[in-house]
Amino acid sequence: MSEVVTFGEGMVRLSPPHFQRLEQTSTLDMAVGGAEFNVATGVTRLGLTASWVSRLPQNALGRVLVNQARQLGVDTSHVVWSRDDRMGIYFLEFGSAPRPSTVLYDRKNSAMSRIRPGEVDWASALAGAKLFETSGITPALSPSAAEATAEALAIARQKGLKTVYDPNYRSTLWSIEDARKVQTPLMRDVSCFITGVSMEGEAKEAVLGVTGSSPHDLAVRLAETFGFEVVALTLRGTSGLMRNSLTAVAYSNGRSYETKSYDLEVVDRVGGGDAFAAGFIAGYLDDDIQKALDYGTAFAALKHTVPGDINWTTLQETQDLIKGAGLRIRR
Amino acid sequence: MSEVVTFGEGMVRLSPPHFQRLEQTSTLDMAVGGAEFNVATGVTRLGLTASWVSRLPQNALGRVLVNQARQLGVDTSHVVWSRDDRMGIYFLEFGSAPRPSTVLYDRKNSAMSRIRPGEVDWASALAGAKLFETSGITPALSPSAAEATAEALAIARQKGLKTVYDPNYRSTLWSIEDARKVQTPLMRDVSCFITGVSMEGEAKEAVLGVTGSSPHDLAVRLAETFGFEVVALTLRGTSGLMRNSLTAVAYSNGRSYETKSYDLEVVDRVGGGDAFAAGFIAGYLDDDIQKALDYGTAFAALKHTVPGDINWTTLQETQDLIKGAGLRIRR
Amino acid sequence: MSEVVTFGEGMVRLSPPHFQRLEQTSTLDMAVGGAEFNVATGVTRLGLTASWVSRLPQNALGRVLVNQARQLGVDTSHVVWSRDDRMGIYFLEFGSAPRPSTVLYDRKNSAMSRIRPGEVDWASALAGAKLFETSGITPALSPSAAEATAEALAIARQKGLKTVYDPNYRSTLWSIEDARKVQTPLMRDVSCFITGVSMEGEAKEAVLGVTGSSPHDLAVRLAETFGFEVVALTLRGTSGLMRNSLTAVAYSNGRSYETKSYDLEVVDRVGGGDAFAAGFIAGYLDDDIQKALDYGTAFAALKHTVPGDINWTTLQETQDLIKGAGLRIRR
Amino acid sequence: MSEVVTFGEGMVRLSPPHFQRLEQTSTLDMAVGGAEFNVATGVTRLGLTASWVSRLPQNALGRVLVNQARQLGVDTSHVVWSRDDRMGIYFLEFGSAPRPSTVLYDRKNSAMSRIRPGEVDWASALAGAKLFETSGITPALSPSAAEATAEALAIARQKGLKTVYDPNYRSTLWSIEDARKVQTPLMRDVSCFITGVSMEGEAKEAVLGVTGSSPHDLAVRLAETFGFEVVALTLRGTSGLMRNSLTAVAYSNGRSYETKSYDLEVVDRVGGGDAFAAGFIAGYLDDDIQKALDYGTAFAALKHTVPGDINWTTLQETQDLIKGAGLRIRR
Amino acid sequence: MSEVVTFGEGMVRLSPPHFQRLEQTSTLDMAVGGAEFNVATGVTRLGLTASWVSRLPQNALGRVLVNQARQLGVDTSHVVWSRDDRMGIYFLEFGSAPRPSTVLYDRKNSAMSRIRPGEVDWASALAGAKLFETSGITPALSPSAAEATAEALAIARQKGLKTVYDPNYRSTLWSIEDARKVQTPLMRDVSCFITGVSMEGEAKEAVLGVTGSSPHDLAVRLAETFGFEVVALTLRGTSGLMRNSLTAVAYSNGRSYETKSYDLEVVDRVGGGDAFAAGFIAGYLDDDIQKALDYGTAFAALKHTVPGDINWTTLQETQDLIKGAGLRIRR
Amino acid sequence: MSEVVTFGEGMVRLSPPHFQRLEQTSTLDMAVGGAEFNVATGVTRLGLTASWVSRLPQNALGRVLVNQARQLGVDTSHVVWSRDDRMGIYFLEFGSAPRPSTVLYDRKNSAMSRIRPGEVDWASALAGAKLFETSGITPALSPSAAEATAEALAIARQKGLKTVYDPNYRSTLWSIEDARKVQTPLMRDVSCFITGVSMEGEAKEAVLGVTGSSPHDLAVRLAETFGFEVVALTLRGTSGLMRNSLTAVAYSNGRSYETKSYDLEVVDRVGGGDAFAAGFIAGYLDDDIQKALDYGTAFAALKHTVPGDINWTTLQETQDLIKGAGLRIRR
Repeated sequence: MSEVVTFGEGMVRLSPPHFQRLEQTSTLDMAVGGAEFNVATGVTRLGLTASWVSRLPQNALGRVLVNQARQLGVDTSHVVWSRDDRMGIYFLEFGSAPRPSTVLYDRKNSAMSRIRPGEVDWASALAGAKLFETSGITPALSPSAAEATAEALAIARQKGLKTVYDPNYRSTLWSIEDARKVQTPLMRDVSCFITGVSMEGEAKEAVLGVTGSSPHDLAVRLAETFGFEVVALTLRGTSGLMRNSLTAVAYSNGRSYETKSYDLEVVDRVGGGDAFAAGFIAGYLDDDIQKALDYGTAFAALKHTVPGDINWTTLQETQDLIKGAGLRIRR
Repeated sequence: MSEVVTFGEGMVRLSPPHFQRLEQTSTLDMAVGGAEFNVATGVTRLGLTASWVSRLPQNALGRVLVNQARQLGVDTSHVVWSRDDRMGIYFLEFGSAPRPSTVLYDRKNSAMSRIRPGEVDWASALAGAKLFETSGITPALSPSAAEATAEALAIARQKGLKTVYDPNYRSTLWSIEDARKVQTPLMRDVSCFITGVSMEGEAKEAVLGVTGSSPHDLAVRLAETFGFEVVALTLRGTSGLMRNSLTAVAYSNGRSYETKSYDLEVVDRVGGGDAFAAGFIAGYLDDDIQKALDYGTAFAALKHTVPGDINWTTLQETQDLIKGAGLRIRR
Repeated sequence: MSEVVTFGEGMVRLSPPHFQRLEQTSTLDMAVGGAEFNVATGVTRLGLTASWVSRLPQNALGRVLVNQARQLGVDTSHVVWSRDDRMGIYFLEFGSAPRPSTVLYDRKNSAMSRIRPGEVDWASALAGAKLFETSGITPALSPSAAEATAEALAIARQKGLKTVYDPNYRSTLWSIEDARKVQTPLMRDVSCFITGVSMEGEAKEAVLGVTGSSPHDLAVRLAETFGFEVVALTLRGTSGLMRNSLTAVAYSNGRSYETKSYDLEVVDRVGGGDAFAAGFIAGYLDDDIQKALDYGTAFAALKHTVPGDINWTTLQETQDLIKGAGLRIRR
Repeated sequence: MSEVVTFGEGMVRLSPPHFQRLEQTSTLDMAVGGAEFNVATGVTRLGLTASWVSRLPQNALGRVLVNQARQLGVDTSHVVWSRDDRMGIYFLEFGSAPRPSTVLYDRKNSAMSRIRPGEVDWASALAGAKLFETSGITPALSPSAAEATAEALAIARQKGLKTVYDPNYRSTLWSIEDARKVQTPLMRDVSCFITGVSMEGEAKEAVLGVTGSSPHDLAVRLAETFGFEVVALTLRGTSGLMRNSLTAVAYSNGRSYETKSYDLEVVDRVGGGDAFAAGFIAGYLDDDIQKALDYGTAFAALKHTVPGDINWTTLQETQDLIKGAGLRIRR
Repeated sequence: MSEVVTFGEGMVRLSPPHFQRLEQTSTLDMAVGGAEFNVATGVTRLGLTASWVSRLPQNALGRVLVNQARQLGVDTSHVVWSRDDRMGIYFLEFGSAPRPSTVLYDRKNSAMSRIRPGEVDWASALAGAKLFETSGITPALSPSAAEATAEALAIARQKGLKTVYDPNYRSTLWSIEDARKVQTPLMRDVSCFITGVSMEGEAKEAVLGVTGSSPHDLAVRLAETFGFEVVALTLRGTSGLMRNSLTAVAYSNGRSYETKSYDLEVVDRVGGGDAFAAGFIAGYLDDDIQKALDYGTAFAALKHTVPGDINWTTLQETQDLIKGAGLRIRR
Repeated sequence: MSEVVTFGEGMVRLSPPHFQRLEQTSTLDMAVGGAEFNVATGVTRLGLTASWVSRLPQNALGRVLVNQARQLGVDTSHVVWSRDDRMGIYFLEFGSAPRPSTVLYDRKNSAMSRIRPGEVDWASALAGAKLFETSGITPALSPSAAEATAEALAIARQKGLKTVYDPNYRSTLWSIEDARKVQTPLMRDVSCFITGVSMEGEAKEAVLGVTGSSPHDLAVRLAETFGFEVVALTLRGTSGLMRNSLTAVAYSNGRSYETKSYDLEVVDRVGGGDAFAAGFIAGYLDDDIQKALDYGTAFAALKHTVPGDINWTTLQETQDLIKGAGLRIRR
């Protein structure tokens, strides 16, 4: 019985060390990740209880995902085990300006992509939960995964849970058109919508096709168009891959929210958006949108300082950062 | 224009360092391999020219395979490139007694498994070649790959090439029954048959279903049953995973051959059988079966001392070993 | 609510890679361990539920212990957190003949050594449990830890649990005299006594001072002297540090038990005895002493093939080994 | 017989590689350090002779400290060996903005913390020396260490040595109040006082409680209040953890000194202050305060470019930097 | 038969990881490089065929160079093998501001330094080639190597090949005076002259002694003085070792060319100039100087993001960068 | 002023990790060694004082050698520094049966090979010393080094020091004929002769050309032929590269000596002979040949368990081994 339940694919992440390309490396750092996996592990770092629901192959790699989730205190008892399918893998090459980082997905036919509605016992998985989270990656995996996502969101909403959704658009998984067609009906069951907006040019949510004159305006329009209770937008400024700035805005019930902007020395930005969702959830569960925005942004900022998808920083460090702790060695 | 042409899948090989299990490691050693890839790289170490024919995805991992083959001087101009498919991967956990090593294959839907007859321009690929080699893994990949194997063997034989075949049975790819049904007709186009035989119990070739009272007897029966010009059998003694002994026998045209037995301190036994095939080919091309057996066994013995599928030892070291070089530091 | 509850110190384990000495290394492999920690993680690998009770400092190192236990599915909700104390550390140098491995303990004043009776809520920690396990290291940590051990054993026994005890004598923690004086009264509350016996010379249990003409005889005498329901003794043969043999005997209710002997290529022998205890518990919970002995010995044998204190092998691999699986690559 | 003698604790330093947190790493980089250890090794890099006086446990870790000191040519013949105590350890996590680096000290009950007055034969240790250096960490270790510090300073001063002192305040060792109470009387025996001042806000020396309108003013006030012959203050500007600027000011005998400011790409800032002290000493021994300030600042700047506490740069590199060597590859 | 033929030394490159100094490291990263080796591997990445001509010792290190060249598809059949000589080695220490990177050459008496005119069969090596490239390092190696360089340039020019030359001045190999004396006569056989110019101060080509009021002016003067068909100059701005900017200018047949300037987060700048030459050659072979400048600068910019001398980026990435691809993760 | 003075080359040692070949590795382990360097560091581990005399280039690699010697407490004040020459390097590939380990020397023109008589101030270097040690590698480096060796031995003998000599024949440095011609006259100034004898076949000292019916007989004949005060022979049995046995015999003043034989699990045998010499010296200085033989053999046996040329085991461990300490974990 967990406060937060997330639903999505977990993957093995393989990356060459120290900016090497795949063609030149002889070792790979092995880690795990996946948008909803990252949210589940993030909220437990912030003191909440969480459960991650997924579908995994019954082999050593599937066990790695469960082990890592459990290591962070995430409940994995509702994972569905598959005898035949494979683990999704992604290869991550870290870039430096002017070379962007690249992800080579090898996730076709993964166990999670073959999930079907009815496979998860949602009545049990959601028992006692307060919030359900998933992202646009889950319905993008396959038509049956899209149906399973719709099923999960509908049940969560019927049970009165808050529901958090991040479209997380991946062009290698589906086209913008397919992404819009499949996700638009899901929005009915979403109470809180989170996404990242580039700080260059006009504010635009690409998947749902909504634009605004500013991030704040975009948030308002998204909320009004789809009836979201809350909309939160992360804003990233990039002057290279190793230095970024990060802030966020939110809108809820007629009120706009802002928070600090952080200068980041980026160690690993993968999972930054998921860390924002995790931090935001910590406040949203208290119905405190300012806290949600502060925690989300600070926790996301801290994520950039840690290698891997998982945000190994702590609730204490997040609170210290919000309060304005400096950069001196803590000793 | 290469003397030896091999045909088969290449894979990325990922293994946790120092006897770790996949569940406990945070790094993977990355290498490449595949039975016929290993044979092609083996024969170039022994001074021959070789070409490796395969089908690869057009991405960084596909390029890794081509790079590694080229590094050893293997011609890759007949590789077929695929836009959509994936690279086959295998995860290798090194064991120590009493825990066997394990291989977790993730090779379904690989680019090579989707090869179809007619895709390779064999007229060009085999031009000027003297010998064609493939193994039972290639037809096991898929029905279309089995057809492509039959096509290649038939063309090679029509062109008058020597043909070398190792059944290399993998129970995770197909059943013994399927393996026998598919491979038996291929034997018509095989001139040299190589396989490994356990030194415990009776001598038996599992796939084709032939048995003998001894390894020598088995070699005779295989040659007689299928009309092979040459049969070579490797014999391995195991008193643990880190100490093995290795020898081999051959039969050709009414004559039996023996060679030395080597005590091995095993660093990595994967690719040992392929190294035997490579060394054997070096003699078989000279129609010198004793040389073939001596080179095959010594080169295979040396393979066990080197990490990875590729046998980085040299022609000189192979000849020194056959002549009886000792174990003193060479300086 | 776990079937098995263990009670003891967890430590950070730091070891130079590849047989280096502490004086020459610039990196340390970091792992975790501790006798009862190892037993708890061992029994979950074998499919049981387990809880590990300990006392840890509230810092990153304390969290590492909890994370690692959770990763293996061990319940840590009864860990007592300390604000002030330190984590115990041990430095492990791997040896090769004729140099023995060495452990440099730095565990004085650890959080666990300062545990006091009454700190653990045993009523809750043991609720629903069937078996309690601890070892002689726990009472050796300090007088208050010895009292806490006595308290735990007494409560477990009152509740009708099976209790497993391994003296695990460490001369750097206490003298044989002190060990005997403190532990002898504890034996009243022990139902199953496990210890290791050298295969050289006469069979002797050093701490309690019992000797026998053979391991079997020693088991009988221990059972008779202290009224143990079961006694199990592991027997190790050493012809170097990298090759060992391992078997075990047991005695219970007038009957002696034997099992296979395994030849081991030793990767890391630390935790071997704890793995035996974990495997033995799996059978003892079924009141099947032969199963206990078979599982204990096979699981302990497998432990030697994996680096670290934790036995990352599986129930399936343990069962395969008992059935006589060979050493061929599993693929 | 060394020109410079320093007195303080040496520690084993353990840090996860590449910005990892302790909770996620499986290896630790092992190095050594300690304020006065760093000063001693620093002055030998600059061509002086030095002796490091400390108290160490008689085990492999104690030997590591001595080995490392000797490697840099530091005399360790006055180290006091302890049979029973432990080595101090510190765990260092490297941060990136906005996450500060953290140090987890595990130094309680270290051999050095148990040093008592009279244990060191100062007559012999200081024979022929020109300068004695220690820092506020030494008296902070324990009351007996504070007494031993007072003893050493007094003897050094009686012998007419120059004495250098850096308060090096560590809040985890003692409170500001205790630090002030213990250190104020020591100042009588200090000829040169060095400390770091933040470049944000007013200039303030926290421990002794002196403030100034500017760094120069603070230096003057410190000198006047305590009668120091020389005061030197390092000034650090931070726009993140990976880019810093560094300069310093000094005051002596009515004259103020300035030096260049350096832009730093920070690899490891630990030991930067100690490197300043080492460089400063090189000039102070010549009674050339401008040289002291130039060498101290340049040597400290170079320290930031090298991993570990020890400054592996050379006298030649220090002089080149002072002369304005650029950033082109030296080849 | 390759489009591009380069002639120069290849070396083993050994560098301590993570900014360590040679005095503190216990491991070295091993790679290969050399100006003309880098150009040959660079042009194959851009889709051309290339041959690298050199002289190597017949041992494992010599084979490493050939293996690496072949891995990138470079033809090595014209390498001259030496029985007696040694491999050139260079030790590279990575710096961070204010410490410059340093190269410690150990290349005296290398096999390549002992090359003599007549040893290479240039008729065969240049058959079918369109362009010959070498740099000022080759004649600097020894008088006989200087003669061999003159021979090669003369033959290439006689055959009507384009010839590319970069003076690549190394003060540890020869004095400016010797460099000028030896290279001036070579310029007669050079059609395209490439060199790097610092962006600070006046534009000056140090070796040939030509200056200009601006980079563009310098290019014009170089072309006019020596009759070069094309002159290309790279311009680097440095605000530290980890952030650089890079652009270039060219002049040919009365016309000046410019291209974009790139902000670089520098991972490894060694080989940047060689990457420029490789990219420039790709356009020069098409007689398209704008393309040459665009490709050269973009390919050089990308080189800085990859560890090692070899530029593992691709033609596609180079074209994407020229078109203005941003810094978002490619997935 | 050291008890023992050794004279010979130190080298940088580079070896691929985990049995890799040079052709396949991307990292090298960096260490240092050299026969007489190893003896000097060995005797300090055994509690004696030692000085190592050599000639080194004035660069980072030269400093590495001095640092490493000092780390072990060896005096390096008599090292001669050269401005121009290079450091000798050796590449070591670890083998496993049936592949021998290989050493690729790159030591030509090293600073030490250019040493000349008169360069070392032997009066000062040998002041207060009791024993001088060198090996046949030193005169093999060059004719001038041979003269310098003769000079050193002669002066040592004149001063009444014991002198220890090990021929250490290296076929890549000189022929047997040259080795004999140069070394025979040196024997006049040698008091103790040490060498290794294979346990297969007859006992033979190859360089000096003496044979015996047994190792003991060989020792007698050597002593008689050359008038050595002591002769010690190490005897190695090899059943692979990872398991060896080691013992030794000695002869002095009409008496033969034996010691234990040790079974070795070999981690790194390089430096084993030098460790024997170091241990032997410890007893020879006491004129106790039995102690010399016991210490030499035990210290050499322990050397095989530690990676690198330096024997990081301790006097205590050596004494424990002689007394018969077993293989149990020391904790």
